[in-house]
Amino acid sequence: MENNDVIFGKNAVTEALISGNREINKILISKNIHTDNKIARIKELASERGIVFQFVGREKFQPYDEFNHQGVIAQISPIKYMDLDEFLQTKSHTNSSLVILDGVEDVHNLGAIVRTCVCAGVDGIIIPSRRNVQVNSTVEKTSAGAINHIPIIKVNSLVNAVQTLKDNNWWVIATDASAKDNYYDVKYNDMNFAIIMGAEHAGVSKSLLKQSDFVIKIPMQNSFNSLNVSNALSAIIFEALRQKLTEKRK
Amino acid sequence: MENNDVIFGKNAVTEALISGNREINKILISKNIHTDNKIARIKELASERGIVFQFVGREKFQPYDEFNHQGVIAQISPIKYMDLDEFLQTKSHTNSSLVILDGVEDVHNLGAIVRTCVCAGVDGIIIPSRRNVQVNSTVEKTSAGAINHIPIIKVNSLVNAVQTLKDNNWWVIATDASAKDNYYDVKYNDMNFAIIMGAEHAGVSKSLLKQSDFVIKIPMQNSFNSLNVSNALSAIIFEALRQKLTEKRK
Repeated sequence: MENNDVIFGKNAVTEALISGNREINKILISKNIHTDNKIARIKELASERGIVFQFVGREKFQPYDEFNHQGVIAQISPIKYMDLDEFLQTKSHTNSSLVILDGVEDVHNLGAIVRTCVCAGVDGIIIPSRRNVQVNSTVEKTSAGAINHIPIIKVNSLVNAVQTLKDNNWWVIATDASAKDNYYDVKYNDMNFAIIMGAEHAGVSKSLLKQSDFVIKIPMQNSFNSLNVSNALSAIIFEALRQKLTEKRK
Repeated sequence: MENNDVIFGKNAVTEALISGNREINKILISKNIHTDNKIARIKELASERGIVFQFVGREKFQPYDEFNHQGVIAQISPIKYMDLDEFLQTKSHTNSSLVILDGVEDVHNLGAIVRTCVCAGVDGIIIPSRRNVQVNSTVEKTSAGAINHIPIIKVNSLVNAVQTLKDNNWWVIATDASAKDNYYDVKYNDMNFAIIMGAEHAGVSKSLLKQSDFVIKIPMQNSFNSLNVSNALSAIIFEALRQKLTEKRK
């Protein structure tokens, strides 16, 4: 299994089969689980694509028992990260959006962020190669396979990446609890924008705040103001989408 | 420790100390952890309130090692659920909001939902006494203590609860992927409303959909349309807040 990742769970395996972005080496299904519709679909998709699936004993799943694997795992080629330059050149961007993660540490949060971005039509997610959670098996599982539906762009320096975006006429928006403007004060239409979400505790780093064109906050209604990063992103990114969709109708 | 819950982690313990809603029996701090600002604050708050804290060896934490306890636990009286009648009578409600959870199973989701509701100023969360995750130690931890800042209303029947709300002039809004209206088409101002969020897979149950005054969806931008329930709620509840705050300014 060198050079292979393992992904877990019925949805993650199904999505990997459907998307076809990743080379699947082999699918293992536990002999001890009931063949429901989802398992039947996995077998069908695997057959169509000529991918080996094996029914194996429970002991093969032991190394993965800390994950909720549902009796299905796939050995899969590692996720292909995209370069920022490659992303910017793949198409001419208008009204595009990116999410930049500055130090998100929790794998569950990253999974939820990926799902939210895919559902809201975000065009890519930028993560730094250090001091941020990387895409591992838990993220694949938590993202329920969404990870295969959006480019993940890995960069060595977020500061350089933000500069590159600005040089390419992208607007950069950072989130910060002490910002003056609320997130809904920004007009997200008619521009390419990137939203920077900070680490769970430290927030967006100072150097990135300085570089940003806008700094926004979510107005908190309680002295207890600790919103989970994926939930904060959800409020912001769906507001941007709301503006786009309602503007269109006019 | 009969009749006591255990809560884990620096934030959860601090929030429980601050809120004072819960009787704290004893706080245990690991001898092996570094006394940072948060630990110092916990000691200070506990002293002020005359609550015993003990420094104990690592082995005392062993039963809880599956949780990220950060070397701090508190033995605490179980959360006090509120009755719906009690909630409705505590004050005269205008522009109030409730979130109703119909079969949410994942403890991390419940924790994130509680945090989102507190930050967005929701007035209470209704959960059914069966077929929904209950408030346990993991929820306390995941909610980072937010659970102490919002009434959790437990009801035997969601159908009856929704009827009671309607009888008291609350508007009931259900979420459903096949709804015609988008969540931002509803005008949330000038009414008391309750939003029903469904189970991760099954969605809102048919009987509740029938009872609801509005059924709304989040417009998905991708064939992969599996938004996490807490992220879906975040988009909706912050849109309601946006309307309320921007309407005020006019």
